[in-house]
Amino acid sequence: MVSDNCIFCKIANGEIPSATLYEDEDFRVILDLGPASKGHALILPKKHAANLFELPDETASKAIVLAKKVASTLKEGLHADGVNLVQNNGEAAGQTVFHFHMHIIPRYQNDTVNVTWKPGELTETDKNEILGLF
Amino acid sequence: MVSDNCIFCKIANGEIPSATLYEDEDFRVILDLGPASKGHALILPKKHAANLFELPDETASKAIVLAKKVASTLKEGLHADGVNLVQNNGEAAGQTVFHFHMHIIPRYQNDTVNVTWKPGELTETDKNEILGLF
Repeated sequence: MVSDNCIFCKIANGEIPSATLYEDEDFRVILDLGPASKGHALILPKKHAANLFELPDETASKAIVLAKKVASTLKEGLHADGVNLVQNNGEAAGQTVFHFHMHIIPRYQNDTVNVTWKPGELTETDKNEILGLF
Repeated sequence: MVSDNCIFCKIANGEIPSATLYEDEDFRVILDLGPASKGHALILPKKHAANLFELPDETASKAIVLAKKVASTLKEGLHADGVNLVQNNGEAAGQTVFHFHMHIIPRYQNDTVNVTWKPGELTETDKNEILGLF
């Protein structure tokens, strides 16, 4: 259940101290030490799963309900103007610790966070290929 | 349940056509017309909620389980290297349509998507203020 060499396993299970906002039998919610913005928090499941694909559905469900609660408290308490939830899977997606985590990033007018992209075009070829997968 | 002037209500409920990957009684999953990357999809609940804070817990739970399934099919079918889930709340967070949606963004080596941030510092003052909210 717990991976020996996983720093987020150690943090989630209290072997390494952290700024903990919330804890229950399934999760620990901590402050990110390199915050994107004031209040940047991470939801960590206690049982190891490398990413969303390894996370049991029941844990994923609990994670987003917890994210909603924590995001609401942060937004209200810090008078934030918005909140991003970001959950990265794979190095190509910016994941740096391979233990599932969900970022809760409070947003403020004129902050320096950049969670945007340049919109491309949905071509007919791509559309048909992708529709064919489902 | 459905907001008259909400374009995502109209898309989710089939009044406006879309490239639909999946549909059930609660959700429609569509391809983004201005994709960040090949396979960029959106999970839309059929009942209007402006953002995560207005979304019932049960719907949020179902949304992330559905996101996991769709992300898995996209990743495998498109041979993507990773996937981001991004869910924006509020204009300051980059939300442009005020009907809850979750972005599923397949990622590829050397794509041009930028979902990153410059890490700041967690000061003792901020830490204590934020811990005091919980």
